[in-house]
Amino acid sequence: MIIITLDAMGGDHAPESTVHGAVWAARDFGITVQLVGQSNLIEAELAKHDTRGLQLPLVPASQVIEMGEHPSAAVKTKKDSSMVVGVGVVKAGNSQAFVTMGNSGGALAAALFGLGRIKGIKRPALGTLFPADTKSGYIFLLDAGANTDVRPEYLLQFALMGHHYAERVMKIDSPRIGLLSTGEEEEKGNALIQEATPLLKQSQLNFIGNVEGKDVPTGLADVIVTDGFTGNVYLKGAEGVASMMMTFLKREVKARPLAVIGMLLAKGALDVLKARMDYREFGGGVLLGVNGVVIIGHGRSDAYAVRNAIRVAKESVENNVVGAIEAGVNG
Amino acid sequence: MIIITLDAMGGDHAPESTVHGAVWAARDFGITVQLVGQSNLIEAELAKHDTRGLQLPLVPASQVIEMGEHPSAAVKTKKDSSMVVGVGVVKAGNSQAFVTMGNSGGALAAALFGLGRIKGIKRPALGTLFPADTKSGYIFLLDAGANTDVRPEYLLQFALMGHHYAERVMKIDSPRIGLLSTGEEEEKGNALIQEATPLLKQSQLNFIGNVEGKDVPTGLADVIVTDGFTGNVYLKGAEGVASMMMTFLKREVKARPLAVIGMLLAKGALDVLKARMDYREFGGGVLLGVNGVVIIGHGRSDAYAVRNAIRVAKESVENNVVGAIEAGVNG
Repeated sequence: MIIITLDAMGGDHAPESTVHGAVWAARDFGITVQLVGQSNLIEAELAKHDTRGLQLPLVPASQVIEMGEHPSAAVKTKKDSSMVVGVGVVKAGNSQAFVTMGNSGGALAAALFGLGRIKGIKRPALGTLFPADTKSGYIFLLDAGANTDVRPEYLLQFALMGHHYAERVMKIDSPRIGLLSTGEEEEKGNALIQEATPLLKQSQLNFIGNVEGKDVPTGLADVIVTDGFTGNVYLKGAEGVASMMMTFLKREVKARPLAVIGMLLAKGALDVLKARMDYREFGGGVLLGVNGVVIIGHGRSDAYAVRNAIRVAKESVENNVVGAIEAGVNG
Repeated sequence: MIIITLDAMGGDHAPESTVHGAVWAARDFGITVQLVGQSNLIEAELAKHDTRGLQLPLVPASQVIEMGEHPSAAVKTKKDSSMVVGVGVVKAGNSQAFVTMGNSGGALAAALFGLGRIKGIKRPALGTLFPADTKSGYIFLLDAGANTDVRPEYLLQFALMGHHYAERVMKIDSPRIGLLSTGEEEEKGNALIQEATPLLKQSQLNFIGNVEGKDVPTGLADVIVTDGFTGNVYLKGAEGVASMMMTFLKREVKARPLAVIGMLLAKGALDVLKARMDYREFGGGVLLGVNGVVIIGHGRSDAYAVRNAIRVAKESVENNVVGAIEAGVNG
């Protein structure tokens, strides 16, 4: 029986969105979702839903790590926070995964302190699905922001972790690994890329070489490896561009009565496009390299995004991603 | 009289696109466009156009620096290449600007060797307009790829150069400068950003702080400062996302007969969106920090993009961007 632990207090719309997402996930996936946080608030939210037959046990935690707090300081001082308590439940073996929409630096710190790294892994990395023109509709990109300054050997390990995630969870045989750079040629890129490229070439991974920013959505590679600074700028940049295009389009349509009708006729196509670009569909990032399944979602997640983040946790548990990485890095 | 020197041999579609773009620019902007390259090829292209009354002198150069060549090696060995000869014409004072769609590393090397840096400038940077929700419809981003590894003090100088470009050419009073990072908070970003942020804060520039990838198109800042690696990944990433969205949309529309009609009705709005996202409208990057106006366009530029790259060169000359940077860095 899969037991996922959810930080009921984390995120801009918690606990309303988190509890709603937990109810939704428990029903859709037939799993137990443990809710960690302030009992009275969680119970009040639970009362709004029909939870008959669902497994939604409550784990009390009196404190909350807020969005603006300094991650490691907060994790050290707030021992009874939903994040620290939630990770502790996983550490104790009473749950197989921890999911949070809260302070992502805090989640990283709580996971590192509480669960530790997989033996041999130098740095955990945050991986995320990104919409692309592939069979699954996605590629897997890491690091999305856990490590802003990295060494070449970290990138090699990110590639290894991405390989196992893509193989196990995305069910891609021999996933193609690409290193994000400023050109395909080996002499392009910065000093970091120039040192990391030979490491990837010498590895057993299916390394297809360096790829440019424009190649990420084309699905040239199944796994895109980058440092957490570049990855974060890339992902947020993509989000900004998609949003700008929608804003521009809406504004131009609004100014043209015929275009308004046109857009109504094309609504089905536009809705599919929106869904494909919607981060809520894949629900959150996977923190790879720690000793346990940890999913970190967007702070602004709504109930649907929370539901899907829990699904991502379930898939990581079912496919034993942690075990695969452990065997891969030490094998 | 403004005389722009164009590398007629540079780019994927040269000399057809370059010569056509030169004719177009000479007519539209009333300027002289000097065409550098292989005389017979250029003359054959010129013969396809009505050039009566236009100033399109030819500057012979027998060699071409190809797209795949190693930039500095090619510049050193191919002394009679269109790029080296073209920069030489500017250096000799016989033209005020050099424009190329060729090997961008080669253009950077040719400009550095031929024109040198503005006194006090440590590294030139490639700046480019990027579509944004601002009055002009654009922000200015630099470095777009000239320097893949930078020091904090380079970022400060990029900010200064961006300030002068925005003020002089984009006519923005006291342009708002933003440093591209992973979050607005000063403790976010990588080591480079954490060292550069105080330098920018202490400067006389209108530094508004660190901005995220998603904020670039919102126009939170008029000038976005970043290293050339991140800038290149960002820009190519944006291009990839825009192109993916169009591909996805077309595919979904095609599958729905009503949506096809809808898109026809909305064509005007879609055309405006496409034009706003089209790099051809702004034609190319501006290499700031060298002793002369140098514009580097996309390799795949068509005649319209070449025309606009020449327009960008003309605007930089008219507004004396080089002089403003020189005064700014030494003032």
